[in-house]
Amino acid sequence: MITFLPENRRCEERIGDTLLDLALKSKIEVISVCGGLGACGKCKVRVVKGREFLSPISHKERSFLTIEDISSGYRLACQAKVLKKGEIEVEIPVTSRRGAYILQVEGIETPVTLSPSVKRICVKVKKPALKSVKSDHDLLLEALKTEARSISISCLRSLPVVLRNEKWEVSAILYKDEIIDVRSKKAKVLGFAVDLGSTKLAGYLLDLETGKTLGKTSRLNPQVRYGEDILTRITHIMKDKRKLSVLRALLLKAVNEMIRELVKAVNASTSDVYEVVAVGNTYMHHSFLGIDPSYLALSPYPPVVRKALTYDAKEVGLTINEGGKVYVLPNIAGFVGADCVAAILATEIYKLEKPCLMIDIGTNTEIVLNDGKGLFAVSTASGPAFEGAHIKFGVRAMIGAIESVAIRNCDVLYRTIGNGKPVGICGSGILDAISQMVEHSILDESGRLNENVCKELVKRDGGIKELILVDKDKTAINEDITISQKDIREIQKAKAAIATGIKVLLNNRGISSDDLEAVFIAGAFGTYLDPLSAIKIGMLPRVPLVKIHQVGNAAGTGARMCLLSDYMKRKAEDVAGKVNYIELAVEPYFQEIYLDSIKLKEYNI
Amino acid sequence: MITFLPENRRCEERIGDTLLDLALKSKIEVISVCGGLGACGKCKVRVVKGREFLSPISHKERSFLTIEDISSGYRLACQAKVLKKGEIEVEIPVTSRRGAYILQVEGIETPVTLSPSVKRICVKVKKPALKSVKSDHDLLLEALKTEARSISISCLRSLPVVLRNEKWEVSAILYKDEIIDVRSKKAKVLGFAVDLGSTKLAGYLLDLETGKTLGKTSRLNPQVRYGEDILTRITHIMKDKRKLSVLRALLLKAVNEMIRELVKAVNASTSDVYEVVAVGNTYMHHSFLGIDPSYLALSPYPPVVRKALTYDAKEVGLTINEGGKVYVLPNIAGFVGADCVAAILATEIYKLEKPCLMIDIGTNTEIVLNDGKGLFAVSTASGPAFEGAHIKFGVRAMIGAIESVAIRNCDVLYRTIGNGKPVGICGSGILDAISQMVEHSILDESGRLNENVCKELVKRDGGIKELILVDKDKTAINEDITISQKDIREIQKAKAAIATGIKVLLNNRGISSDDLEAVFIAGAFGTYLDPLSAIKIGMLPRVPLVKIHQVGNAAGTGARMCLLSDYMKRKAEDVAGKVNYIELAVEPYFQEIYLDSIKLKEYNI
Repeated sequence: MITFLPENRRCEERIGDTLLDLALKSKIEVISVCGGLGACGKCKVRVVKGREFLSPISHKERSFLTIEDISSGYRLACQAKVLKKGEIEVEIPVTSRRGAYILQVEGIETPVTLSPSVKRICVKVKKPALKSVKSDHDLLLEALKTEARSISISCLRSLPVVLRNEKWEVSAILYKDEIIDVRSKKAKVLGFAVDLGSTKLAGYLLDLETGKTLGKTSRLNPQVRYGEDILTRITHIMKDKRKLSVLRALLLKAVNEMIRELVKAVNASTSDVYEVVAVGNTYMHHSFLGIDPSYLALSPYPPVVRKALTYDAKEVGLTINEGGKVYVLPNIAGFVGADCVAAILATEIYKLEKPCLMIDIGTNTEIVLNDGKGLFAVSTASGPAFEGAHIKFGVRAMIGAIESVAIRNCDVLYRTIGNGKPVGICGSGILDAISQMVEHSILDESGRLNENVCKELVKRDGGIKELILVDKDKTAINEDITISQKDIREIQKAKAAIATGIKVLLNNRGISSDDLEAVFIAGAFGTYLDPLSAIKIGMLPRVPLVKIHQVGNAAGTGARMCLLSDYMKRKAEDVAGKVNYIELAVEPYFQEIYLDSIKLKEYNI
Repeated sequence: MITFLPENRRCEERIGDTLLDLALKSKIEVISVCGGLGACGKCKVRVVKGREFLSPISHKERSFLTIEDISSGYRLACQAKVLKKGEIEVEIPVTSRRGAYILQVEGIETPVTLSPSVKRICVKVKKPALKSVKSDHDLLLEALKTEARSISISCLRSLPVVLRNEKWEVSAILYKDEIIDVRSKKAKVLGFAVDLGSTKLAGYLLDLETGKTLGKTSRLNPQVRYGEDILTRITHIMKDKRKLSVLRALLLKAVNEMIRELVKAVNASTSDVYEVVAVGNTYMHHSFLGIDPSYLALSPYPPVVRKALTYDAKEVGLTINEGGKVYVLPNIAGFVGADCVAAILATEIYKLEKPCLMIDIGTNTEIVLNDGKGLFAVSTASGPAFEGAHIKFGVRAMIGAIESVAIRNCDVLYRTIGNGKPVGICGSGILDAISQMVEHSILDESGRLNENVCKELVKRDGGIKELILVDKDKTAINEDITISQKDIREIQKAKAAIATGIKVLLNNRGISSDDLEAVFIAGAFGTYLDPLSAIKIGMLPRVPLVKIHQVGNAAGTGARMCLLSDYMKRKAEDVAGKVNYIELAVEPYFQEIYLDSIKLKEYNI
């Protein structure tokens, strides 16, 4: 028997199970960035009792665990396997948990004229008469005075009973020109918009007749069990095609749960939901629909489909009304997905007449430029460093994460999310810290840590220089929280990827950063970052701060807009068709620009 | 343990099971016209051993069994229940079996220009290139040079793998403007047409590229277990709504089996079948689609839907290609279904400029008149007498059924199907017999049996006069095969129903039977009947025999035509919308006409 602390949750182990398997089985969510490959070191757990029943420390574990870690009983949960049955107790430290994460669902509210694809028409239907034979369906069409071209089979199945039970006064629900339901006049007409992020799902329940958002919810994308980054998940699928349906099922379960949670909160039922609008990057899009995403990982990275798609919710696997539909926004390219199209809609950059930029920062960052004449997009692999991965004390936005940092006279001032005792540092905090270190010459332009400034803040761990942000005695993890030279290199690479994308786009279109009228920063990390820090380390171009707009989950906003407006759906298809995708790798000087962007200094071009 | 003879098939009985239940469980198909209500007397079986373990002879059984029957061990299988376990042996006589039935699948071949909804386009698709990012779907559309508006989700799911496995040379299968499959260039493109008769299913496998019928098959409609006539089945559903899905599942299973049987015979697979076109009366139509048919049995008998419908085969429950479709022809009224529309197409009566009549004889007979200006239809409850029900020695077309009769000098000459030893008399035989009896004045116009002509042929059974057709020693059932006064009354009612429909229609449109250019007789019974006999007993109007066309399963032909031609589908919808349904019961003089039509004499009007 294995016991997980501090929950005291128990579970029967089998020979060969890893601690990660058993933790998941016990419904304790342990972080696993690499999907159990022993490559990220994020799933550290402490074996309190029964170390002798587990496999010996592996080579992979040695590269992530210090001697002290090992002697304290730390293991990587994905590597430690049960060799023999016995009483095992394992403590899951707060930093290895997917627990109190701050999940970003807020986004700008872009006004949209209400004209949803789903419409309710209340009608009084004539009863059939012997003199002129008409079907229930004929009589319904007469009452609707509409050119409805088709009727769903589920609707036909319930039609005769509903008409008679409701005494021939009913609500007919139409999806464009198809009748998808006939029910009580009092029925609600709801819709659900969902942003399928690689790591996070954000869902919105809307009243399609008032346009109001009735509820919001979010959860971690359960697919992160198979790797926090997309390529790891695709690799799983390439190795074993059956994983496609496993990953899809995990996702659908979570989305269905979100819908249930939100409808319950407003005393509605899943059968009141008639449409789901989904956005996500191209991998998430494919995975959601059960389409093989393998080729996204192979040059030339073609998506299987770009066009917007509408399917029956049943076919997709969502539990909403029997006749309900799923609309998925179009993709632009293998690495510029429907979420980017949604963000374009939400920020309305396609409407502006002066040059503007939209940057949706994530593990993959999409950058879209409107040069005043057309839309141009690049995608750049900024990596998960801003989400805390590959950063020694990096964590995602969670209670206790250091979210902003200032250095004053070699004193480190910081603020944590929820004012929790520091557990680590999240993206915006790292950006601040690096920007401040540059400001105080603790870092030079090349990113080298100068140990002669603020000597008291610098220590070495295994030869690698580190800047101490918080002393061990003030943290929740009984260790100094530091930023290491290695962390700085990771952030340099990540910000260089974004800067390169911006520079290539502007170069390609002959636009200078001074020409930019607006820069929209979308995405969870983008909401929290300090734009000044981002400019100072050379991630964003130097533009007046007033031109920078942090728009939060713009993809979610775009999805909601399409749910509320058939016109916006057509706009999405129109916009997606017009975006010119530029493949970074084939642009001239790409390599030079990237190397130059590694530098920690402001730029404008 | 119960044993069924002569198969020696054994099965474990439970207390309370009827012999009918146990026979079905043992996969022995016993006829049950009434669906186990004890109302038809068709499920006679002989208990050879273990009578003491069964319930006593019920009141209902007494009305169907003679004293001799009872003493020989005869029971109605639906009434005899197991009261105690023991060794029971039951013999199922050939006349109580659904066995060697002659199932009618042949119908006229009406030529049609090949233009199916399902089309294959062979294409060479360009491979994706890094310079201009395109999705697999985009590249396919480019190669197709078509305005395909949508693509099925199943097709998207297999698209990337198929394109690469087939080295970018594939067959794209389109259904109208939707891409429903992409597969090997060598793929077959098949379709299946099915006539869903109340008692019989007739299926046809077609090559949609050559238009050839590759195979035909038929089987009894397994729903007959719940009653051979539709109203009995609807009553089951009205009493217990769950029966709708039970009846639907039985039907779908049989249809799926027919498809499997036919594709196997031509070395194809069910995934080569892209479309099913189905026709049937309105009840069968509703039952096939899972639509509640209850209201068909309640005045004013409205169907739930009349319009033609196209659904995904998966939604309907048919196992063909993942992206396959089901097209169901339109209905005209509650008792004039899609099968009648198909028969109109097959006989092409909608095209003729001179008046003509189409009569599709079944338990319910549909009659359509083209008066030269428009189409007019009535439906009339002719009952199952022509299929042998409610006729003392009546059987359906089966080996040994007497199919034609002539009386010469008080000698009865007859022919049986397959030259089998006589087991009973089927519809065409009864018609001949009655016509001959009228001819020889054995029957008068009112239908009274005159026992003074051919005295030797007449006997009495319980006071009821009977004409002996075959002596006991020449039959397979060890009994005289006779036609009783009661049988004659049944046939009079049945033929009067048809004649009334014809007369009302002609009257209503002011057409005389001399004006008729053609009379088409469709349906299995209609194929075998002797038109002269039908005229002589006053079932059909007196028209020159040359104008009468026996067209067999015209409904099946119409279904095949729609499978081969999108144009014919539109024609079906057009024709169905134009047929004027006339409700017999509300026509003036209906009652008088019916009473007059009871008479056994020729008519023309």
